[in-house]
Parts: sequence; structure tokens; C-alpha cells
Amino acid sequence: MELFGFFRSSASYRVRIALAFKGLAFEPHYVSLPKMEHKADAFLRLNPEGLVPALVDAGRVFTQSLAIMEYLEETRPDPPFLPEAPEARAYVRAVSQIICCDIHPLNNVRVLKYLDTRLGQSEADRSAWYAHWIAEGFRSIEGVLAARGVSGRFVLGDAPGMADICLVPQVFNAHRFNCHLAEYPMAMRIYENCMAIECFESAHPKYQADAF
Amino acid sequence: MELFGFFRSSASYRVRIALAFKGLAFEPHYVSLPKMEHKADAFLRLNPEGLVPALVDAGRVFTQSLAIMEYLEETRPDPPFLPEAPEARAYVRAVSQIICCDIHPLNNVRVLKYLDTRLGQSEADRSAWYAHWIAEGFRSIEGVLAARGVSGRFVLGDAPGMADICLVPQVFNAHRFNCHLAEYPMAMRIYENCMAIECFESAHPKYQADAF
Repeated sequence: MELFGFFRSSASYRVRIALAFKGLAFEPHYVSLPKMEHKADAFLRLNPEGLVPALVDAGRVFTQSLAIMEYLEETRPDPPFLPEAPEARAYVRAVSQIICCDIHPLNNVRVLKYLDTRLGQSEADRSAWYAHWIAEGFRSIEGVLAARGVSGRFVLGDAPGMADICLVPQVFNAHRFNCHLAEYPMAMRIYENCMAIECFESAHPKYQADAF
Repeated sequence: MELFGFFRSSASYRVRIALAFKGLAFEPHYVSLPKMEHKADAFLRLNPEGLVPALVDAGRVFTQSLAIMEYLEETRPDPPFLPEAPEARAYVRAVSQIICCDIHPLNNVRVLKYLDTRLGQSEADRSAWYAHWIAEGFRSIEGVLAARGVSGRFVLGDAPGMADICLVPQVFNAHRFNCHLAEYPMAMRIYENCMAIECFESAHPKYQADAF
């Protein structure tokens, strides 16, 4: 397998954790977002979306981090990202999507760049924007965890899964932007529990060869 | 089943199509976004995320439109939203996620409201923002369809599925904001083919009791 990603991209980070979680080795390819390599013809031929990550498995290209995780789950089911019961699977997917649909799309680099260059928003206003969507999203997550009466070490019970894999990169990014997350103790406890696990730790941006 | 939604919400519209597609009847509950009913205590007790849609099935609450669709697929598999082969499933999910993760989160009402009230952006600037993310997203979709060598009537072959269900509400919304979509002929042909199908047509916002 080959993974085209960028060390700091949240969605790339998710897929790195997912691959390590499944014990799958991959050849990394580094696509620099600051250098706009994701919009270069060579990369667009691989992924016309012009976004990272892209996973190549057996000559086929897979995109969109949640779709990649579902694909890995279907083709390499052990260990699982998702529980067995449909209701529990829906819960894990919903928490994953709070992060991947409600938080991250608003705070990624292309959006912050638009706010800067197209709308002329100051760094303070961009930071407030970032913090606003983090707060909205983490309030959601904390509320959903509380409603579920979460008692285990991870989003669902005592085994980490898809939602935990989405949570960790989002916390990393929020820290990078100096967001205060102490108001979300359940989410943060899960984050700490994840970071004690090898596959979460090894996927960290700082260990990637393209890190700077 | 009960569906809590708002007629014009893209994510609610997706779930209405999905339920009709599976032939599932539901009792509708109307949550007015302009009246901020999604942030009222009564609704937050049901869904702490404070977002529509929320589906209630057998006393359990399901949120996030893609997670709801996966749940329906797992519990009511016939007719299917997704093909059988993992690679094809990944493709359909990826196209769905271009819409649900890359386009819609940037253009929904809470974001447009933030641009207006918090950042003081003019209506023209908000329209340009909306059009920018529509263009980025539809270029992606068109590129992915072209790369796949799409030849059937829908995103994958001649049967509609999850990605088509995501596409239709996004096109509806783009039209509402007067975006030009003629540059995306493959996506628009699929949209037209969908609109000829009863379950897509009946889920249209204009037919909902809360429409205004």
C-alpha cells in the first residue's frame, strides 16, 4: 500500500492511525500543502479532488478518510474499527462525523487561507473562527458522550475504534491553534487513553519524514 | 420511525430520500432552524449536537446523515444504497463525502450566519464564498466521475445509491444560491436522472409540511 499525505493534515493523520491500527505497512509519499503539490497535475492525475490523503491499494486509488477507513474495515476486518451491532456502529460513525463533517471541514488550511486572502480577515479573527468551530464541535461530542453515559476508556467501551481515530488528530490540531479543551473532560480523557497506544503515537505528525 | 428535520436542510433532505428509497414510512417532526428550535432544550435532549436531522428508530436516536444511511443500509438492506464490492463501496462513499465533508459543511446556514454576523461579510461576499466551495466541490465530483469513466445513469452504474442521494440536495441548494452548474455535465445528468425517480422527487423540500 502507498499513502499520499501531509504530516499535519488531519485526514492524513487519521489514515496513518488507521493503517497502524490494522497493522498494515505502507510506503509514504509526501504531498506538501504549503507548496501546493496537491494541486499539481501529477497529484491531480492520482486524485482529481486535489486533496490528501489518497491511499493506493492493489493499483486502485482510495480517497476521503472515512471512506478509506470503511474500506480497510471491510477488507482487513481484524482488529475492527467498528463494533458489531448496527446501533453501536451508527453511534461510532456519528461521533466520527461530528469531527469529519462538522469541525474539520471548517478549520482546514484551504478555509483559513480563504478567510485570509479573500476576505482579509486578521489572524485574530481567523483564530476566533477556528476556536468557535472547535468549541461547537467539542460541545457536541461531550454532549453525545454524556447522553450515551460513556463509561469505558474510549468513545465506545474499552476498545478504540473509528471515532477515537478521528478524535486524536482533531485534538492535535486544536492544540496547535491554542484552543482550550479542558471544558471537554470526557473527550480529553479518551484522547489521553489513545495517546498511550502505539498505533496512535507512531502516526503523530512529528514522526513523519515530511515534518517541519 | 420518526424524523426530526427541516425542509430546507440538506442533511434532512438526504435522509428523507434515503427513507423513501428504502420504502420506510416515518412520522415527521419539524425543527425550525430560523426559529433556532434546534438549539432549544427540548431538541438538545434528543440530540445534544443541536443539529438536524435526527432519526428515532425503536426508541433510539440516530444522528449525522451518513451514519443514518449506513444504519439503514445495515438494518434494511433491500434495496441497497451501496454496491457489494469493497472497492466500489469505497468509491460511492468517497463521492458522498466530497459532498458531505467538503462542500456542505462550508455552506450551511450556521456558517453563512457567522460570516454575516460575526465577520460582517456582505451578501455579495457570502454568495462568493458559497459559489467558491460549490465550484471546488463540483469540480472534484466531475473529476472523480471522469476518472472512473462513468457510463451509467447514476454515480455508479444504472442504480442510484448513497452518492446520488447526497448529490440531489446539494444541487438543490446550489440552485437556491444561483450557482451555475452547467460546467459539471456528468453530475447534472445524474441529478436529472435522479429527479425522475419518485423517492427523490417526493423528498423535495417543497413538498414538506414546514416548507415556506
